[in-house]
Amino acid sequence: MFQIDGLQYCNWARHIFEQMREGRMDAVHATICYHETFRETAGNIATWNRLFEDHADLIMPGRFAEDVEKARASGRTAIFFGLQNCSAIEDDIGLVEVLYDLGVRFMQLTYNNQSLLGSGCYEPVDGGITRMGKEVIREMNRLGLVIDMSHSGERSTLEAIGHSTRPIVVSHANPNFWHPAPRNKSEKVLDALKESGGIIGLSLYPHHLKGGSNCTAADFARMAKQLADRIGAGQVAIGSDLCQDQPDSVVEWMRSGRWTKQGAAPGCAPTAVFPDQPEWFRDNRQFPGLRAHLRKAGFAPAEADGILGNNWYRFFAKSVEPARQRFTPHVDGR
Amino acid sequence: MFQIDGLQYCNWARHIFEQMREGRMDAVHATICYHETFRETAGNIATWNRLFEDHADLIMPGRFAEDVEKARASGRTAIFFGLQNCSAIEDDIGLVEVLYDLGVRFMQLTYNNQSLLGSGCYEPVDGGITRMGKEVIREMNRLGLVIDMSHSGERSTLEAIGHSTRPIVVSHANPNFWHPAPRNKSEKVLDALKESGGIIGLSLYPHHLKGGSNCTAADFARMAKQLADRIGAGQVAIGSDLCQDQPDSVVEWMRSGRWTKQGAAPGCAPTAVFPDQPEWFRDNRQFPGLRAHLRKAGFAPAEADGILGNNWYRFFAKSVEPARQRFTPHVDGR
Repeated sequence: MFQIDGLQYCNWARHIFEQMREGRMDAVHATICYHETFRETAGNIATWNRLFEDHADLIMPGRFAEDVEKARASGRTAIFFGLQNCSAIEDDIGLVEVLYDLGVRFMQLTYNNQSLLGSGCYEPVDGGITRMGKEVIREMNRLGLVIDMSHSGERSTLEAIGHSTRPIVVSHANPNFWHPAPRNKSEKVLDALKESGGIIGLSLYPHHLKGGSNCTAADFARMAKQLADRIGAGQVAIGSDLCQDQPDSVVEWMRSGRWTKQGAAPGCAPTAVFPDQPEWFRDNRQFPGLRAHLRKAGFAPAEADGILGNNWYRFFAKSVEPARQRFTPHVDGR
Repeated sequence: MFQIDGLQYCNWARHIFEQMREGRMDAVHATICYHETFRETAGNIATWNRLFEDHADLIMPGRFAEDVEKARASGRTAIFFGLQNCSAIEDDIGLVEVLYDLGVRFMQLTYNNQSLLGSGCYEPVDGGITRMGKEVIREMNRLGLVIDMSHSGERSTLEAIGHSTRPIVVSHANPNFWHPAPRNKSEKVLDALKESGGIIGLSLYPHHLKGGSNCTAADFARMAKQLADRIGAGQVAIGSDLCQDQPDSVVEWMRSGRWTKQGAAPGCAPTAVFPDQPEWFRDNRQFPGLRAHLRKAGFAPAEADGILGNNWYRFFAKSVEPARQRFTPHVDGR
């Protein structure tokens, strides 16, 4: 089995990569953009290139499913890039392909706010997918750049599922039936995701957990089982949202970006601080430990393997391949 | 034999790609930046992505020597990207690798002016390769991004050859011994280029030709022979500098960019207009016709084949490969 985390945004450094190896993580989807412009995102990619060069014994770039296998074979973790917002494409659909070619494999159509493509989950009005949003969905489908609606509003999410010809993901969130929160997902969204063949990565970020930092692993695993009973264990995975070692200024950046002068963004908690992780998931070394809790909650071994990585692996294998065929004339119909 | 042109900057359109096919061009190095910022260069790449998508029956992206073979096998022309200036990396060495990953395979350290890396051939003072220039040369060497000194001053060019651990190129220029011009190259530069295993692509741009637009193909071919007798036929190629169908405003952009308010840049011709191409090289269809002139000037068949493409092909094969090995731990010494 593969172990894959469907979302992290740590304060990347060698000891975190070492912990990934201790936890035997084969792949991690890492966020490289919240509010950055294209130029700033390119700078973040350059920073990652340095990390790949300096820690080539621990990590490698992840582009396709085969890179997960290559990473395992060489005892490393494949890092897949994702954007939590569409700010990096600015207003230019051509940048979708440019970012794909730089290794980006996931893009949220929105973060918390209205974007050029759709509405975030904190907006009072969700107008659904915009005109540009439909165009960008088509382009992402063409390339195999995965649509992620983790932070989007319900209408936008349902419309994205409807417009997309490929399964989409909610890379990091939990069900509202367990813990109601703007960032968690309604049964309507979960059912539509199931229907379309998408994946939800369950979050271990305290604000998404029932009981917050005190949530127990057993309770988390029971929620996973309840969800799997509804949408199928093959469509449930992990997207831990681990933000290890980040200073609190990063929460402020995530929430407030450059769109407000208020450090604590309207609608969010009054002070922008990172909550404590539950003691059973503080870093990558504890990832394999989730397995026992899933088994105890009633998952069969193969189902637990799926949730901890095989489901993401299968999803990568079918979802990020299309662009490889781009430049062959017969595919373009000539 | 392969047919490869080491530099063109046409007003790209379908009929030009059709002419490339009529001329049986296997590969063309196309300029994608003169003075553009990183963001603007990304926009130019997005424009090329559209061309690759819309004309997939005629052209394809060229990244490695094998793409020249793939292009020939599928009856297309592989387009290799190059920058005629370092403006696209701004002041950020990390952008060298980002641009490499977007397909850039050649970069001039300078255009006509002083750059952050070295001095252009129109500067009154050539201070040689700068501190950042040395760093960028090392990074380009690591990646296999080819250093091109076509527009650089003599001292900068000699120092680039000296600092680079890989052969460099002068992708489009002619020898000063034939036609003295700021853009043509001294025997000192040509000898150093020979010594280091580099390549010069002979230019068919009238300002670089003896007699300008009236230069004869026979005279051009005799110059090529004289040069080959000095540096070896294996290090001579073609870099036509073909600027087909460009409006004169493009000459102004090339020369004056955003660095002067004068349309006709100081030191250049008083009016910025494109000169007429010699009647024997107006577009890609006439490329194969150069062969007879080279043969008549005394080149053996294999030498003429080398000049028209095989020399570039061999150069590509050894010069743009290294970065493929980047992310393997043993290469990085761990």
